[in-house]
Amino acid sequence: MEGEKKQTSVVLLNCSVSPFGNRVRIALARKGVAYEERPENLTAKSPLLLSSNPVLAKIPVLIVDGKPVCESLAILEFIDEAYAGAGEPLLPPADDPFARARARFWAAYVDAKVPESAVKVWRSPAGAAGSAAVEEGTKGLVAVLRTLEEELGEKRYFGGETLGYVDVALVPFTPWFLTYERFGGFSVAAECPTLAAWAARCASENTCVAASLPDAEAVYQFVCGMRKHFGLDG
Amino acid sequence: MEGEKKQTSVVLLNCSVSPFGNRVRIALARKGVAYEERPENLTAKSPLLLSSNPVLAKIPVLIVDGKPVCESLAILEFIDEAYAGAGEPLLPPADDPFARARARFWAAYVDAKVPESAVKVWRSPAGAAGSAAVEEGTKGLVAVLRTLEEELGEKRYFGGETLGYVDVALVPFTPWFLTYERFGGFSVAAECPTLAAWAARCASENTCVAASLPDAEAVYQFVCGMRKHFGLDG
Repeated sequence: MEGEKKQTSVVLLNCSVSPFGNRVRIALARKGVAYEERPENLTAKSPLLLSSNPVLAKIPVLIVDGKPVCESLAILEFIDEAYAGAGEPLLPPADDPFARARARFWAAYVDAKVPESAVKVWRSPAGAAGSAAVEEGTKGLVAVLRTLEEELGEKRYFGGETLGYVDVALVPFTPWFLTYERFGGFSVAAECPTLAAWAARCASENTCVAASLPDAEAVYQFVCGMRKHFGLDG
Repeated sequence: MEGEKKQTSVVLLNCSVSPFGNRVRIALARKGVAYEERPENLTAKSPLLLSSNPVLAKIPVLIVDGKPVCESLAILEFIDEAYAGAGEPLLPPADDPFARARARFWAAYVDAKVPESAVKVWRSPAGAAGSAAVEEGTKGLVAVLRTLEEELGEKRYFGGETLGYVDVALVPFTPWFLTYERFGGFSVAAECPTLAAWAARCASENTCVAASLPDAEAVYQFVCGMRKHFGLDG
């Protein structure tokens, strides 16, 4: 109808345990963007996923009025730009390009380092070779978490006083910590107490985080099911 | 002196054959930013590199008035933002977040896919196992280049009519094509004629590209020296 504001359709293709997909949930919730989530089964991807991300065939995909946006960090920047007027920005302001670059550096660091070690911890096969891989992964993961903890320093959030881009990039890995701990035989709180406190703070002080993340036990059960599916437990 | 405009100091830590470092050269040249390049020897990194990028200890690092910016794509975005008034922007305009997200997606694709295959092509040891790796790498690399060629389509540049963010991210790999071809036993022009034409166009139509990239033969000689250094030729 003339003069009526067009309703935007926002669809998120996601998998509820995915740290990458859940970044997008958090960003949308924080900006107050209403959306429909369509769960993807990664062993039987939907035609919509394959057609909207034909190059990688990976979640998350954000589809806005039929136009797909792919890759979780690119989606976060998209949300920050497309909904610039809504809610607090994720990245530091445009007049501080150094701070923006620093946030992008650390988000890229998370992507380059966390999954690589983490996957060795929870997806290695049982047995001697598997144990060596788990040990290597655990060592690497703790080193990465300590590096992140050092960057956090005495700030409340990576973003400073409030949740920002790096927080949103990293916090969806925290429901996986329990899984890393059980397979790696270590404690995040013992190794990285400041980071553990940050993780708790993210969830307790930010509804957009608390409402977007899966239960840690559910992640562990998902991983156990996946290991069984792939015959990793011997 | 009062009223005098403060001169900015811009230093680039680089290695002249690095595709990542040469992205920064192109972006600075395009924006008309004067800078001093300090060549790094990657087998004996300088104290300045180690102190300005302590987390990764990698080039490129752009140091502006003593403040370091790390990670080549984050540096490109930094240059686009910090020198917004100078020269043409690299990313599409702020009012087209879809186009910006698409550019970021493809730059991330280049980083995730090109080096991974390319390194197998030129850094595998001589011998049967090495040959298998080279073959796998070549197959992967051609597939990646074809995917990029498809994204380019009939456009003159990935950025449309002019050189943009994805062009700047990808074009510094083109002086390496000769090396990939010699080790992989294939021809980029034969496999991806449209992409080969794009590479030639980037250099012939853009001084910032032509002036920033090393000679393909020099890259090949560098790689041969590196292979010798690491004892890869048996």
